[in-house]
Amino acid sequence: MPIGTGRRSGTRVESDSMGKIEVPAEHYWGAQTQRSLIHFSIGDDRMPVRVYHAYGYVKKAAALVNQAAGRLDQHRTAAIVQAADEVLAGDLDSEFPLYVWQTGSGTQSNMNVNEVLANRASQLLGGELGTKSPVHPNDHVNLGQSSNDTFPTAMHIATVLEVTGYLFPRVDALVEAIEEGAVRWVDVVKIGRTHLQDATPLTVGQEWSGWATQLRDARERLAQALVGCHQLAAGGTAVGTGLNAPCGFGEQIAAKIAELTGHPFVTAPNKFAAQGSLDAMVAVSAGIRGLAVALMKIANDMRWLASGPRAGLHELVLPANEPGSSIMPGKVNPTQQEAMVMVCLQVMGEDSIVAAAGAQGNFELNAMRPIIINNVLHSARILADASDKLRRYSVCGTELDRDRISELVGRSLMLVTALSPTIGYDQASKIAHKADHDGSSLRDAALALGVAAEDYDRIVDPARMVGNPHADLHVP
Amino acid sequence: MPIGTGRRSGTRVESDSMGKIEVPAEHYWGAQTQRSLIHFSIGDDRMPVRVYHAYGYVKKAAALVNQAAGRLDQHRTAAIVQAADEVLAGDLDSEFPLYVWQTGSGTQSNMNVNEVLANRASQLLGGELGTKSPVHPNDHVNLGQSSNDTFPTAMHIATVLEVTGYLFPRVDALVEAIEEGAVRWVDVVKIGRTHLQDATPLTVGQEWSGWATQLRDARERLAQALVGCHQLAAGGTAVGTGLNAPCGFGEQIAAKIAELTGHPFVTAPNKFAAQGSLDAMVAVSAGIRGLAVALMKIANDMRWLASGPRAGLHELVLPANEPGSSIMPGKVNPTQQEAMVMVCLQVMGEDSIVAAAGAQGNFELNAMRPIIINNVLHSARILADASDKLRRYSVCGTELDRDRISELVGRSLMLVTALSPTIGYDQASKIAHKADHDGSSLRDAALALGVAAEDYDRIVDPARMVGNPHADLHVP
Amino acid sequence: MPIGTGRRSGTRVESDSMGKIEVPAEHYWGAQTQRSLIHFSIGDDRMPVRVYHAYGYVKKAAALVNQAAGRLDQHRTAAIVQAADEVLAGDLDSEFPLYVWQTGSGTQSNMNVNEVLANRASQLLGGELGTKSPVHPNDHVNLGQSSNDTFPTAMHIATVLEVTGYLFPRVDALVEAIEEGAVRWVDVVKIGRTHLQDATPLTVGQEWSGWATQLRDARERLAQALVGCHQLAAGGTAVGTGLNAPCGFGEQIAAKIAELTGHPFVTAPNKFAAQGSLDAMVAVSAGIRGLAVALMKIANDMRWLASGPRAGLHELVLPANEPGSSIMPGKVNPTQQEAMVMVCLQVMGEDSIVAAAGAQGNFELNAMRPIIINNVLHSARILADASDKLRRYSVCGTELDRDRISELVGRSLMLVTALSPTIGYDQASKIAHKADHDGSSLRDAALALGVAAEDYDRIVDPARMVGNPHADLHVP
Amino acid sequence: MPIGTGRRSGTRVESDSMGKIEVPAEHYWGAQTQRSLIHFSIGDDRMPVRVYHAYGYVKKAAALVNQAAGRLDQHRTAAIVQAADEVLAGDLDSEFPLYVWQTGSGTQSNMNVNEVLANRASQLLGGELGTKSPVHPNDHVNLGQSSNDTFPTAMHIATVLEVTGYLFPRVDALVEAIEEGAVRWVDVVKIGRTHLQDATPLTVGQEWSGWATQLRDARERLAQALVGCHQLAAGGTAVGTGLNAPCGFGEQIAAKIAELTGHPFVTAPNKFAAQGSLDAMVAVSAGIRGLAVALMKIANDMRWLASGPRAGLHELVLPANEPGSSIMPGKVNPTQQEAMVMVCLQVMGEDSIVAAAGAQGNFELNAMRPIIINNVLHSARILADASDKLRRYSVCGTELDRDRISELVGRSLMLVTALSPTIGYDQASKIAHKADHDGSSLRDAALALGVAAEDYDRIVDPARMVGNPHADLHVP
Repeated sequence: MPIGTGRRSGTRVESDSMGKIEVPAEHYWGAQTQRSLIHFSIGDDRMPVRVYHAYGYVKKAAALVNQAAGRLDQHRTAAIVQAADEVLAGDLDSEFPLYVWQTGSGTQSNMNVNEVLANRASQLLGGELGTKSPVHPNDHVNLGQSSNDTFPTAMHIATVLEVTGYLFPRVDALVEAIEEGAVRWVDVVKIGRTHLQDATPLTVGQEWSGWATQLRDARERLAQALVGCHQLAAGGTAVGTGLNAPCGFGEQIAAKIAELTGHPFVTAPNKFAAQGSLDAMVAVSAGIRGLAVALMKIANDMRWLASGPRAGLHELVLPANEPGSSIMPGKVNPTQQEAMVMVCLQVMGEDSIVAAAGAQGNFELNAMRPIIINNVLHSARILADASDKLRRYSVCGTELDRDRISELVGRSLMLVTALSPTIGYDQASKIAHKADHDGSSLRDAALALGVAAEDYDRIVDPARMVGNPHADLHVP
Repeated sequence: MPIGTGRRSGTRVESDSMGKIEVPAEHYWGAQTQRSLIHFSIGDDRMPVRVYHAYGYVKKAAALVNQAAGRLDQHRTAAIVQAADEVLAGDLDSEFPLYVWQTGSGTQSNMNVNEVLANRASQLLGGELGTKSPVHPNDHVNLGQSSNDTFPTAMHIATVLEVTGYLFPRVDALVEAIEEGAVRWVDVVKIGRTHLQDATPLTVGQEWSGWATQLRDARERLAQALVGCHQLAAGGTAVGTGLNAPCGFGEQIAAKIAELTGHPFVTAPNKFAAQGSLDAMVAVSAGIRGLAVALMKIANDMRWLASGPRAGLHELVLPANEPGSSIMPGKVNPTQQEAMVMVCLQVMGEDSIVAAAGAQGNFELNAMRPIIINNVLHSARILADASDKLRRYSVCGTELDRDRISELVGRSLMLVTALSPTIGYDQASKIAHKADHDGSSLRDAALALGVAAEDYDRIVDPARMVGNPHADLHVP
Repeated sequence: MPIGTGRRSGTRVESDSMGKIEVPAEHYWGAQTQRSLIHFSIGDDRMPVRVYHAYGYVKKAAALVNQAAGRLDQHRTAAIVQAADEVLAGDLDSEFPLYVWQTGSGTQSNMNVNEVLANRASQLLGGELGTKSPVHPNDHVNLGQSSNDTFPTAMHIATVLEVTGYLFPRVDALVEAIEEGAVRWVDVVKIGRTHLQDATPLTVGQEWSGWATQLRDARERLAQALVGCHQLAAGGTAVGTGLNAPCGFGEQIAAKIAELTGHPFVTAPNKFAAQGSLDAMVAVSAGIRGLAVALMKIANDMRWLASGPRAGLHELVLPANEPGSSIMPGKVNPTQQEAMVMVCLQVMGEDSIVAAAGAQGNFELNAMRPIIINNVLHSARILADASDKLRRYSVCGTELDRDRISELVGRSLMLVTALSPTIGYDQASKIAHKADHDGSSLRDAALALGVAAEDYDRIVDPARMVGNPHADLHVP
Repeated sequence: MPIGTGRRSGTRVESDSMGKIEVPAEHYWGAQTQRSLIHFSIGDDRMPVRVYHAYGYVKKAAALVNQAAGRLDQHRTAAIVQAADEVLAGDLDSEFPLYVWQTGSGTQSNMNVNEVLANRASQLLGGELGTKSPVHPNDHVNLGQSSNDTFPTAMHIATVLEVTGYLFPRVDALVEAIEEGAVRWVDVVKIGRTHLQDATPLTVGQEWSGWATQLRDARERLAQALVGCHQLAAGGTAVGTGLNAPCGFGEQIAAKIAELTGHPFVTAPNKFAAQGSLDAMVAVSAGIRGLAVALMKIANDMRWLASGPRAGLHELVLPANEPGSSIMPGKVNPTQQEAMVMVCLQVMGEDSIVAAAGAQGNFELNAMRPIIINNVLHSARILADASDKLRRYSVCGTELDRDRISELVGRSLMLVTALSPTIGYDQASKIAHKADHDGSSLRDAALALGVAAEDYDRIVDPARMVGNPHADLHVP
């Protein structure tokens, strides 16, 4: 709670163009927030607090830009900035109670911010809550702005901060943990599998290097998509024309936000696109989905490779974190991988929602903003946390069942592939089919069909069939 | 908090097959819950409390069935039943903190229930928390059960209770409100629109009867889908064979649950399907989606028909609930409809997630249970609340702009359709094209092309072109 | 080609309200079809011919109903009926060239039918193609109808015929083949797997009975959904009011279509819902998806159980239909299962498209009809064919690797579950963990921890842990 | 048909490791193609011919690289290259009949190519079809390759060629047509709409500039995503290790393909990722979806703005391409826009399928290749064609209803926004509410509430409320 706040119980009266309404006395929000709370108590999905933190930057930047141009006096500016800093510090999180399912423009959340900042700033200046004086939510806090341009601005800021500040560090740490495995087991030869069927060998390190590469590439794609979110709609006001915003306001507020956040935000070159669409958000969502697509493959590989312990593949031994069954004593399950698969399915589905909503714009507004920002931030968050947990509680503690790995690669009939350049595909096929049919070893079948023992032993060596595993670690 | 609970601060030691672990002293949960909390703090999605309420029925029924067969003594049974009743009353909601993203079987939530009931029941019997005595979470509370059969059982129960007890009443109320509109405006003739273009007339009542019929049909389809959820997996235990459950346990526990809940639950005839799949849940999800598909059409129709007030269709006047813009004074928006459209998109997307997860079963278990129950309950809940809000704050207060309605229907060139049977499609086309080209009235164009004035006035009467609107209200 | 058709090369002139246009002389279609061909050559997706066959029923029924009421003379009726019969026989398939991506009402396809039938019927009556005489496409073939009511009518008919006549027989045959496996291997005890990890035993027959049950249930759900498609929009004409259709027309044409097809079609009780939505189609789509969800699980189970041959689970031996690799000689892959998984993913995705389109209705028309009927018929068809191929080329020839099955079940540590009721869950856990840790057999670990050998051998018998497999075959 | 082909009727015998099989004598394909045709006749979805054209580059490049290294002699090389050139020219399109739903690796399509090229090349060298001599499908045409590396290589090539060669030109032409509208109508002031409700003014040119910007941005994002497809898997062979491919083969074949196609293809730095995933394809699919999201908004805007002609918005007058109704004479509908909306929904759905399939990789192979390439190429194609048709038949001929545009902007109550900076938000709200309530003009209400007439007339001028429309045209 901010310093100097004297909060009371009971209610006080706030007003807007619809008239008067009672709000809880201990909160800073005003009439429009209160109306939204009543009209939109749908489920329990609340607008993520990170949207309000992003809005803290928007309102602070607007106040500073307005002051610099002489549109807002020193006192009001200082009070608004202080209140915005309290928002940024998380001190006012409890003042932003609105539901995701509200007006599609996010106006109610913008007004929530305007009301809280106006009341808090007024309070700081000695004013009375609810009087809109000396700081008015529309005329001062929202000066030169509309929900139509500031809400997508806050969406872009929140997304950039979440992805770079929360998701990327966790993905990066996971990639590094996987790369450690790739290095550690670079020379451990194992059987490859395609179509789930036995194939030619590779090393454990190579397999893990593939996972790491998938993740690195997906992360890079997301980083590229994020560039679209550096363009901000602020300055377009109601419909993109910039009505009631001074000339240059868009450029100035973007520059100020860039300065405050340390990210290269710029004003969107075309505000009609920036407010009528949410295409940059859809692209970022696809980038997050790309991570999920890669992580689902990795999680599935891990749980299948760990299957067993006695009747599965069991090349990997995952850490045993919890008892796995309420009825089967001693059972241990690949729970981190299951959680990750579920998270990935959720993220992929939420991305579809984002795209569907992104296509629903009409004229000068895409009125599907709350659903889009909520899904994007949610997807980023659960994917980040799941990556963290997967790394911490499973990847890091995973060991190899080396006996099993050796046993499986030694048995594989697909080692016959190495003979193919020498004896031809058709003859090699006959050997593999014979071994399969007879249940014999590949060597026995090969010798029975005329391959010389010394040729076989020279050519069919799994360790020589894996190329250059060390080179595969050098991910650019 | 349950009567008689003496709660302490600090921690106490609980144990499971992984060893000992400290848990908060003021909570009833045990070691496995605590491990899950640590390993799976992913986002902030918690397993819905309604799952635990459903589990209350499962554990109570199991205890009673086990007692009746002499497998559980009177004292332990009474204590477990009392603890389960506390769960059902919501008194223990704070004891179920686990995340959605956990083991795919829901085992950790089942163990959470087992641990809480065991500790609470032990406490009721004078035992010490954490000693698993006299009531053991596995040997007593989970007696004859596995997570593999009880978790899908709880999913089915929770789904049936949510849909029938929460969603249906709200949808039904909305249907009734729409039907009131249909009756009230049964005779108000308005222009029809196909392809967004002017078409032949109908009445407002007919249009609203279409909405009501869509919703009634969708609700009926969902009710049918719910029948699949009446089949319960309980009795299958670990893999569907019923190992460690006594003969007849499945039938008995289903009968007991039916008795306790008042819903016609029965044991699933094939437990391998019941545990290896979640197909009944997928079907219910599709049923919920069906409501969303209908509601999205209705919400879109309403907001388009209310568009304006001066430059849109504006046949409907929606209640003005909130100021619509932070920059445009006096603006009012179709916010309930926007919220509903977003909710519908969310529900449709969550249904896709449910289906994708439903297809990911392997062998004797579909390990995508938490994601499925979470999405289904979430979808049902937000759709129910959005229906309630739409009815309460928009449908109920909607009025007609009768002047506008009359003006628009009078102008329509498509009234020419009524002439078609008399003068032929081709000649009627010429009249419409002429009026469109000249910007003239349809009557002028018709007369200019040889239609007799008395014929025109007799035939081209919008009120006679709407069939029998009163009959259309008789929804079966 | 119909008897008596004298077809010419070059072009002839046809006309509509837009004016004259040249059409290929060797075809029956007219001006509106030709315009659509030009304006909508998008990809190569053509409106499925099954839609036109369904339209054959609609137009035949309409002519007969109109004749019975004296609105259409005997000669024209007979000619239209004969032409419609030619459509039904497939003789005119080449006359329906339009693309899926056309007007959203399907008007162009309806006019295609009207034009072809009018020209063909006129020809039968000695008229000249392109003169619309003696049979006019709108005034006679389309008499009492609109695209707005007949296109959804044709959609429902085509869907009912495809699902019952093509999809169900192939699914049923697959179910029977699976049930044969369930019977054949009812007593073969194998290891169960949950979370991909070793679990307690069941029999191969039980596992297969689960698959069969899933499919039977999904098929039944689809059959229920199909009931919604028995309601026909015909009679609603342009906007649902029935303008220009005689009283009772809807009931009569539905009865006639029911008579002609043998399916219980009835008139939709509310035409505004029937034309403004496609909700019944969305529900059928969900029903088809339900089959895909089940089939994907089955296909995945089969390919994993067949994995190997030397380094996988390899309980099943699938028929070797084709060489599996261009580089690995002798490799055989679960190709039918892979094709089925892809088909299931496609079907699930197409269902999402259907739902999204189903939610896009506006006012008196859902103008997303072509995309919906195309996806539903496509999904049904590929799922039917994939079911047929899976049965024919994989399920039917699948054999067991009984040695492998015995080996795997014998090793499982989860057999310890049977001891749990006797020695308690916690002690049983210790035994399992010890065996896992030592790499010892479960029996050795149990005896080392104090279980008597005779108790162990009596209790831990996989064959006694599978319940009553024969009872599980009795699917209701 | 290639020069020198002597084709016969009847069948000939071909063979593979499964044995002998009859194939149609008039075709070049061999045993494995024939088996696939029989086992996978599922629906009528055929592997797109563009995949085979791409394979033409792969096989030609491989032959040239192999020859240069002395692994393939001059004669065989020349014959394979000539046959590959025939593939590239489309002369052998009829030789590639396989279904999409086949083995998940695409092996059957690779073998189809190998067989056709081997037979055709053998024929060119005077050999007998079916003898695999002198050119063997595996040992020569497939030399140094596997399906596992060449099929994703062909996917990437086909995708790059389709997007750059077919989709981009059509999107670019559409953007230019939209930009022409933006320039032409840069000064036409119209009412803006947010939430579908009247808002402040902008110009038609500004609105169209927003559409153009959306499309340009989406196209740019797709171009970026395409970069991932420049990485080719070729050289990884069976599992990514490059077994049986000579050192440097990956680099050399990528360079050769780059030379042949003129696109900057390079070898993928990590072949395990390149073969175990299809992540680059998923990213391209998302890029195509981005175009669909933008196009759906544009198409919806256009059809709503054209709604009417007498009872809708009707600011735009779309070209009347076809009669719109079989029952309503003279009706004209926004059919191009409807087709585009359907195409966009299809593309968005197909993208979800691609992502779901992309997440289904296992170990060294993602065996969902055919479904992914088919959906990506299909989406690109229908979106390209729909863009072409929309431009050609609707955007280009669209005109404004200038009277209507002026009428609507003049009436708007939201012009009050311009007063807000002068009189404050709250007072401005009162004016708007009063006008709405009274049904009066905004001016009357403003004057009644104390605004001076001269102030009103100076400030409330729509033409001065649109900012700088000319500047908005300068899309970077």
